[in-house]
Amino acid sequence: AAPGGHPYAHDPLYAHFAAVAGADQEIDARELQRVLNASGLTGNYQSFNMETCRIMITMLDRDYSGKLGFVEYKELFTVLNQWKATFANYDRDRSGTVEGHEMQAAITSFGYRLSPQALGVIMKRYSTDGRIAFDDFVACSIRLRSLTDSFRRRDTAQQGIAQFQYDDFIKVGMYI
Amino acid sequence: AAPGGHPYAHDPLYAHFAAVAGADQEIDARELQRVLNASGLTGNYQSFNMETCRIMITMLDRDYSGKLGFVEYKELFTVLNQWKATFANYDRDRSGTVEGHEMQAAITSFGYRLSPQALGVIMKRYSTDGRIAFDDFVACSIRLRSLTDSFRRRDTAQQGIAQFQYDDFIKVGMYI
Repeated sequence: AAPGGHPYAHDPLYAHFAAVAGADQEIDARELQRVLNASGLTGNYQSFNMETCRIMITMLDRDYSGKLGFVEYKELFTVLNQWKATFANYDRDRSGTVEGHEMQAAITSFGYRLSPQALGVIMKRYSTDGRIAFDDFVACSIRLRSLTDSFRRRDTAQQGIAQFQYDDFIKVGMYI
Repeated sequence: AAPGGHPYAHDPLYAHFAAVAGADQEIDARELQRVLNASGLTGNYQSFNMETCRIMITMLDRDYSGKLGFVEYKELFTVLNQWKATFANYDRDRSGTVEGHEMQAAITSFGYRLSPQALGVIMKRYSTDGRIAFDDFVACSIRLRSLTDSFRRRDTAQQGIAQFQYDDFIKVGMYI
């Protein structure tokens, strides 16, 4: 340990994290679900389901350990709060859901340039009765970000075209 | 309607389907969850979560309607029963879960040729404490099948290499 106690001891997020993480100071998807619920982040929204928590882990888990340390958790927490603000901005009637066209506007505001057809496919996949809950909004945002990052790393000429070997394609597509 | 009544009226699966599908004779993910639970397919396993039901829809929903008709439902039911038999075969102690190496053996038995690294990534994503539940086994199998099909359609020279445009890549990766 660092001299003078744990380096994050004064971070308000640390207490929730440490209580769940235990001795290894890392959290898996199930522990992440507990930490996020304890943090109060979701507020009036439904708590995150396990599948979304797993996707959150894949977003930051650069060593494929299936777990997050405190630094990664803090990074996740920051991104989630930004997405929450964006979501709340579109959820004007505070129903806890946004409409398809609002979700499309949010995706465009993130800087993604997608065809109407691709946006339609995304809406179909992440909506329930035409509306998108915060949990699904987060899952969608993470997967869109991860896939775009993976694509860009392989689009070396920056022409919007990338080549994948089968094994690599499966790794990218399955780990989100 | 066909002369002599509904063409599927004598199909034992039809009663469950028709009861939930209602007038449009199609089911969305939420209705699929109800039909599958009513069908008794999962048996002693945990019932399917919504996210897995959504992935099931994407597997067969060729027109991106977000819904399945009875013919697609029947096709899904057949595939699920095959996967259930495979899963049960590896779940020797009937715990409702299989171990990572058993899941890897199952994937290989399906005919996929993946590197140990890709298999490791898949195990990390779909396991909980090193074990894979039937629900996650199904989600994993569907996504692996969908991604492989999408890849093959673009690997026209059958060299194990495929080129994607960004918009197309996002459609493939997001709709599973």
